[in-house]
Amino acid sequence: MAKAHRSDHLAVVQQLLLCCTLVVALAAPATSAASAPAPGPAEAKKVTWDVEYIMWAPDCQQRAMIGINGTFPGPTITARAGDLVSVTVNNKLHTEGVVIHWHGMRQVGTPWADGTASISQCAINPGESFTYEFVADKPGTFFYHGHFGMQRAAGLYGSLIVEATAEQDEPYRKDYDGGELNMLLSDWYHENVYAQAAGLERKDKHFQWIGEPQTILINGRGQYECMLGKVTNYHRGIDRYAKTCVRGKEAKLCRDKDRCLMRSECGPYCPKSQCAPVVFDVEPGKTYRLRIASTTTLSALNLQVEGHSLTVVEADGNPVEPFTVKDIDIYSGESYSVLLTTSQMPTFYRPGAFWISVGVIGRRPKTLPATAVLRYTNSKLQWPSSVPPKTPTWDDIERSKRFTHSIKALKNNDAATPAPPAPKRATRTIVMLNRQILVGEHVKWAINNVSLTLPATPYLGAYFYGLQGSAFDATDEAPSGFPDDYNIRAPPAAKDNDYKARVSDRVYELPDGALVDVVLQNADMLTETVSETHPWHLHGHDFWVMGYGDGRYDAKKDFPKLNTDNPPLRNTVVVFPHGWTVLRFVADNPGAWAFHCHIEPHLHMGMGAVFIEGVDKMQDLNVPGEAMMCGVIRTAAAVHLTPARRQRSTALAPAQAPAPAPAP
Amino acid sequence: MAKAHRSDHLAVVQQLLLCCTLVVALAAPATSAASAPAPGPAEAKKVTWDVEYIMWAPDCQQRAMIGINGTFPGPTITARAGDLVSVTVNNKLHTEGVVIHWHGMRQVGTPWADGTASISQCAINPGESFTYEFVADKPGTFFYHGHFGMQRAAGLYGSLIVEATAEQDEPYRKDYDGGELNMLLSDWYHENVYAQAAGLERKDKHFQWIGEPQTILINGRGQYECMLGKVTNYHRGIDRYAKTCVRGKEAKLCRDKDRCLMRSECGPYCPKSQCAPVVFDVEPGKTYRLRIASTTTLSALNLQVEGHSLTVVEADGNPVEPFTVKDIDIYSGESYSVLLTTSQMPTFYRPGAFWISVGVIGRRPKTLPATAVLRYTNSKLQWPSSVPPKTPTWDDIERSKRFTHSIKALKNNDAATPAPPAPKRATRTIVMLNRQILVGEHVKWAINNVSLTLPATPYLGAYFYGLQGSAFDATDEAPSGFPDDYNIRAPPAAKDNDYKARVSDRVYELPDGALVDVVLQNADMLTETVSETHPWHLHGHDFWVMGYGDGRYDAKKDFPKLNTDNPPLRNTVVVFPHGWTVLRFVADNPGAWAFHCHIEPHLHMGMGAVFIEGVDKMQDLNVPGEAMMCGVIRTAAAVHLTPARRQRSTALAPAQAPAPAPAP
Repeated sequence: MAKAHRSDHLAVVQQLLLCCTLVVALAAPATSAASAPAPGPAEAKKVTWDVEYIMWAPDCQQRAMIGINGTFPGPTITARAGDLVSVTVNNKLHTEGVVIHWHGMRQVGTPWADGTASISQCAINPGESFTYEFVADKPGTFFYHGHFGMQRAAGLYGSLIVEATAEQDEPYRKDYDGGELNMLLSDWYHENVYAQAAGLERKDKHFQWIGEPQTILINGRGQYECMLGKVTNYHRGIDRYAKTCVRGKEAKLCRDKDRCLMRSECGPYCPKSQCAPVVFDVEPGKTYRLRIASTTTLSALNLQVEGHSLTVVEADGNPVEPFTVKDIDIYSGESYSVLLTTSQMPTFYRPGAFWISVGVIGRRPKTLPATAVLRYTNSKLQWPSSVPPKTPTWDDIERSKRFTHSIKALKNNDAATPAPPAPKRATRTIVMLNRQILVGEHVKWAINNVSLTLPATPYLGAYFYGLQGSAFDATDEAPSGFPDDYNIRAPPAAKDNDYKARVSDRVYELPDGALVDVVLQNADMLTETVSETHPWHLHGHDFWVMGYGDGRYDAKKDFPKLNTDNPPLRNTVVVFPHGWTVLRFVADNPGAWAFHCHIEPHLHMGMGAVFIEGVDKMQDLNVPGEAMMCGVIRTAAAVHLTPARRQRSTALAPAQAPAPAPAP
Repeated sequence: MAKAHRSDHLAVVQQLLLCCTLVVALAAPATSAASAPAPGPAEAKKVTWDVEYIMWAPDCQQRAMIGINGTFPGPTITARAGDLVSVTVNNKLHTEGVVIHWHGMRQVGTPWADGTASISQCAINPGESFTYEFVADKPGTFFYHGHFGMQRAAGLYGSLIVEATAEQDEPYRKDYDGGELNMLLSDWYHENVYAQAAGLERKDKHFQWIGEPQTILINGRGQYECMLGKVTNYHRGIDRYAKTCVRGKEAKLCRDKDRCLMRSECGPYCPKSQCAPVVFDVEPGKTYRLRIASTTTLSALNLQVEGHSLTVVEADGNPVEPFTVKDIDIYSGESYSVLLTTSQMPTFYRPGAFWISVGVIGRRPKTLPATAVLRYTNSKLQWPSSVPPKTPTWDDIERSKRFTHSIKALKNNDAATPAPPAPKRATRTIVMLNRQILVGEHVKWAINNVSLTLPATPYLGAYFYGLQGSAFDATDEAPSGFPDDYNIRAPPAAKDNDYKARVSDRVYELPDGALVDVVLQNADMLTETVSETHPWHLHGHDFWVMGYGDGRYDAKKDFPKLNTDNPPLRNTVVVFPHGWTVLRFVADNPGAWAFHCHIEPHLHMGMGAVFIEGVDKMQDLNVPGEAMMCGVIRTAAAVHLTPARRQRSTALAPAQAPAPAPAP
């Protein structure tokens, strides 16, 4: 955990801004190449992105998506730890603002580059540009995505890979010789995000939940309504819909070049199709690092590779005590690196080509598993002939808990996770009851009965300019707990809704340098006995995951049992149904930081909070004013300009001499 | 035409701002009521609108639409001439800016209230509000709509009716005793506007034209894939798709109350359905004023009322020489009032209920005609039992020309159209070649080979703050003509595209008070022999329609023949295929005014121009600064604030004393 003094970090940033060699490289989507880590600095490069709607067929069905530089997913950024990453975003959307969040980057000293609309900046207006500049502060597997409305679900995301420097190597670097493979997992809806959001906001019985996604995507590619491999009694609940992608039908479309070219919907077996399967070509007898990140809208996923075990070595950019499993769970917002050894000898049944399966867990799946191919260079087949491995039963929560609880920090290593500060220090504890509520007739997600809504003015700008009072409800803090007699195994009582349930943009102000414990407490939804798994993601920090438990958290009983020995550092953690999770961090990063459920519709329905750190240090930040010119800051600036304009005396007054008129 | 001196108008505006009784009223959508004009001032009222996405089923199919205060179409505004209309728009869209244009309002002295993004103001950011305040300067039939991206096509529109005052009555007021009926016509696509726009921007062969709309709507209601009346060999080209809306099927859905309530898709025969037909209840033996406006995305329409003739008396808020027809044409952006007498005696075949048919003309229709019902209070039937009247053959352009050419100004009346200034005055003539071009591989619409793109900074703000040079391409004016040897009956030659075709945000600067003639010259599209009808709409003015002709406009031959006797005043006029239209106005309204084809995808593809009037008077306007804080103005303001922030000496510096921290 970053415990260095803030000003040291600022100094580092400034130094980097002045003299650091830019080594940000754009990598082609990793669909078939297994490349070794770059041996030296990549080409010095600033990245410029045009964000715009594109017509795309990620699952062989054409839809409008938000793309970057004409493609989906966005380009992979590959940097080295310590690099200054510089991304200029040109907003080419016609009517929408846009921001991009760099998920897992702590933005120490650069909170305005966190890319959260209403929190760290104003959305970039259509036709305008903004340059994100931040230090890729640690090696690991990350990604980036839109953080305004539901734009992530509209396709605005891509991979962000930070390689270790030679001096600061990752402890597991020596354990793989084959190179790296990258898998960015996501899910995809055919309904546009405006309709998804509008449905969520309907009142009462009209409420329309977005439902299960149509397709799971691997590196932005999937196959709607069919599976690449043979389907044999595949999944309980969804096997009746499962069918094998028919090669003949698509081949016919594929031959119709005009249509194939124009519609990009020619099926997975057309070579240039946007929904062609992801194939990883690998050498036999080597060990590979497989980077896996999930930016799903909704789905929790399980991934396995036919005939290969997976050794987990990294979680959210932090080394973990290695452990070997047949499959891994991954929730939205999480990332892992796993080592995979290509040790299979070709046989008649497995002639060197293997299925990778990615299936839905945690919710009754209506979405077919996604499949990709791991193909040995000595493979006799292009495609595996086998049935893809069956991912686990969706509702086996105990299995999921076992996997998650297995993740521990790697100890006894220079690069390993620092131990958390001793719990005897002064501690701020915030208990967060996760539940659904009704506000008026609207279904919301809430923390301690308060559903988060975001103001028109970014919090960071409001604090920077001292406009808190007019920018949001600064009359009191968001609530830090909930009643002792609350029953987590029953839906909220009507009186709770009448009494306290509300929508609010209040924040938590954390004392500078405070050691903060957050207890996430899960409970029933509005439906009796139903509780869901939520992956919570914190901006601006990694946190230690101190412990998990079932039922209601009891500080007396549970606090002494928290893991102070080898708690893993992460930026995302789940809270299981009717259970609790405790996380800890040091509030030493001045800025405004979101903390929220990474399920897009849950955040949209208010499942989040905002932490303000370093209130007294905020004015020392080098906040770019042009990124804050919305809401009350815009109004304040306009008022400020008015007398100047009328007096015709300042820079922004009308030109003294009219601009030369164009020739008539 | 407004020829009064600008400062007089300003004085009027200020006076109205100070003391005018607000008589803006929200009327319920006029689906079944025929009300007489309000006898006195309506209730004093400022209007506040929440603009947000709603789930709606305008044609019995549910989609996300942009609604106002939870409904589609937006509320009807009814004002009286001279009223100050005040509409506060709260932007509740999640990621999109929004503006609202008041189509037909001249905005004399209030150019910032014209509601055109990038021209008259910055789009209102999500979470922000803006109040439009303008004088309803003349009586007539108008409407309002979004003017940012393709938001009009997403459903952001409604009626704006301005009644005459008692002192300043309309010349045809005495000719109707039954009251008024209001019909706002539109067309509707099931594909969302982001996908429509993304398709239009695809390159070359990938270009995806939006195609014909799914449904024509009357007051926001239509019936997808079926017609209310009996279908009998209805329309050439589309009759094979036509079917009669089945009452039994919908009735079954209607009984399923939950589904009907939740989906709003229960068919036209459910009483509360959002797609229930529009019924106008009328008294027999009276004369009604039927107000008709069209805000279609694409379609030109023809309207007729079974068994009733129509007497045209108003066009775009201006009295015309009355003429009686069986049916009227109406293009997007136009409005009419027609008088209709309920003179039919009930018979066995027409027992007092009559179909109103609205069908597509000008393009080969794939969209079924819309139908509504005119029902006499003595009707024996709820629904007409007849076949709806067949609208004219779509490609009978000569018939359409005859109708359009019939429109002449009403003379010899106090309220009648002033004659245009004599053509001997100093005249600025701009000839505008309407054609498609290729820019790079993109299909565009262009004026004289220049396709309009809009800057991030509104032109009005750029001139107001003297920032023209940095806000847009002010190096030269947009072109005022095209080569003499250009063949309007052939697609643009490749060399034209190589040589001049471009995208640009240049403007036309018009000398203050200049008499301006615009010659719209139609030509081949990229496809040989194909030329389309385009309805051109001018902001900030009405204009005189001086004449129409076929082929290429020849100033020597055609100018002397222009109609200086009784040219109609309008705000929208069509140019017919391979023909020309001349319009005239006086550039006496300081501001930045759009002039564009009112077909939404054509404007999106660049078919427009911007007129700047009163460059030297711009700084005297009372432009609201907070509406201009985007693009380079935003950047300029941020720079202006930076030193202040660092010195901690101005209003926007960080608070000297930190705001009181919320309780921990």
